[in-house]
Amino acid sequence: MSQAIKNIAKDIIINHLEKATTVGLGSGSTVSLILREISNINCEHIEFIPSSLQIKIEAETQGLRLATEEKIPFIDLVFDGADQINSDLFMVKGGGGALLREKILMRSSKKNIIIADSNKFVNKFTHPVPIEVHYFARSSFINSILELGGNPVLRTIKKGYPYITENGNLIFDTSFESFHNIKNMEQQLKLIPGVIEVGLFTHIADIYYKLDQDEYSIITK
Amino acid sequence: MSQAIKNIAKDIIINHLEKATTVGLGSGSTVSLILREISNINCEHIEFIPSSLQIKIEAETQGLRLATEEKIPFIDLVFDGADQINSDLFMVKGGGGALLREKILMRSSKKNIIIADSNKFVNKFTHPVPIEVHYFARSSFINSILELGGNPVLRTIKKGYPYITENGNLIFDTSFESFHNIKNMEQQLKLIPGVIEVGLFTHIADIYYKLDQDEYSIITK
Repeated sequence: MSQAIKNIAKDIIINHLEKATTVGLGSGSTVSLILREISNINCEHIEFIPSSLQIKIEAETQGLRLATEEKIPFIDLVFDGADQINSDLFMVKGGGGALLREKILMRSSKKNIIIADSNKFVNKFTHPVPIEVHYFARSSFINSILELGGNPVLRTIKKGYPYITENGNLIFDTSFESFHNIKNMEQQLKLIPGVIEVGLFTHIADIYYKLDQDEYSIITK
Repeated sequence: MSQAIKNIAKDIIINHLEKATTVGLGSGSTVSLILREISNINCEHIEFIPSSLQIKIEAETQGLRLATEEKIPFIDLVFDGADQINSDLFMVKGGGGALLREKILMRSSKKNIIIADSNKFVNKFTHPVPIEVHYFARSSFINSILELGGNPVLRTIKKGYPYITENGNLIFDTSFESFHNIKNMEQQLKLIPGVIEVGLFTHIADIYYKLDQDEYSIITK
C-alpha cells in the first residue's frame, strides 16, 4: 500500500472521524485500503453503513460495527472513490455497480470525502456513464438514450451474460460524444422510465484527496 | 359487467385494435374487464405485454399471446386504468403497485387509452401519490419528502408487514397538501435518490373513456 493512502487515512482520522458516529462507505479498492487503515484505530464509537457487499465484507473482515438503512439520515461522513472527476468536481461513478446506494449515502451525509488517483482527475469526462436500468426497460431505454445522443453498452460479466446489480438491475455503460450541461443530463437520464440511478454525481463532495504516487493534495469546493 | 364496459371494449376493438400487433396492458380490475371482452374476438395477430402478474394471469386465462420486454419499443397501443384524473388529464396511478412497468409501457406506446369511472375524474388530486422506493432509501426518502411538503405512508399488506412490489421495492402512499406544478413535482420526486418511479403521470393519454354507470363518454387531449 502506498504511503500516500496511509497519510490520507491519518488525515481523515484526525480531521474528520473523531466526532463521527455514523459513517457511510462507498465501494471499490481505494475505499477498502482506507478502511483497513482506519480499522487500526479504535472505532467502537462508529457505526459503518456499507454501499455494497464488496465493502461490507471488507468491513466485516476488519471487525467494524455495521448499521443498515435506518441510520442513513444520521450519517456524519461518507468516503468513497470515483471513476472520473472533471474540472467542476462532478464525478462519474458506478464502475463497481454500487452507484444507487452510493448516491443515497452521499445525498444524506453531512460531509462527503472522495479519494482518487490523480489520473482520475480530467478536464472533461471520457469515461462511459454507468446507468442502472430495470430489465423491463431494457429495450425502451436503448431507444430513449439514442435520442439523447448516448451509446449504451450492456455490461456483461462474461460473453453474453449480463452483469446484475445487487438491486437486481442491469447496467448500461453509456458513452456520450459530448457533455453539455452535466447537471441537466443527470436529471434527464434519471427521468427516463425504468432508469433506477445514473452514475453522474453533480452533488459536489466537500473534500477531494488527489493521490499522486507517494504524495497527495487536497481539493475543496 | 356493465353494458358500458362492453361498449367501450367494442369501440376499442373497432377503432384502435384492428391494425395493432403489439398491445401493452395496464393493471387493475377495469383493464381485466376490458381484456375479457377483447379476448372474445380473434386476437391471434396481437401480442400482449403485461405490466403486472395480475394482468398477466388474466391474459393467460383468456388464452392470449404474450410477449416480454423486447417488444416494448413496438407497442402500438396501451390500455390502462387510473386512480384519479385531474382537469389537465394528468393522472395518479399505482394503487395496484404496477406504476413502474405501466409508465415504461405508456412512454413507449404509440397510443395510450385510459378507461376510468366518472368518480375518478376530479378537479384537483386528493388521492395520495404512490411512490416506489428502494428499501435502502427508506429513511432518507422520508426526510426528502417531508422537505417537499409530502406526508409519506408506507404501504402495508397487513399490520406492519410492508407491501413489496414485483420489483422488490416499497411503496409510500404520499399525500400533499397542495399540488402546484405537477409536471415539476413528478420530476422532483423521481430525482430523489432511491425513488424508482412516481405515480404521477403527466404524459397525457390520447383517449380517456369516462364510465358513467351504463354510459360512457370520450375525452381527448
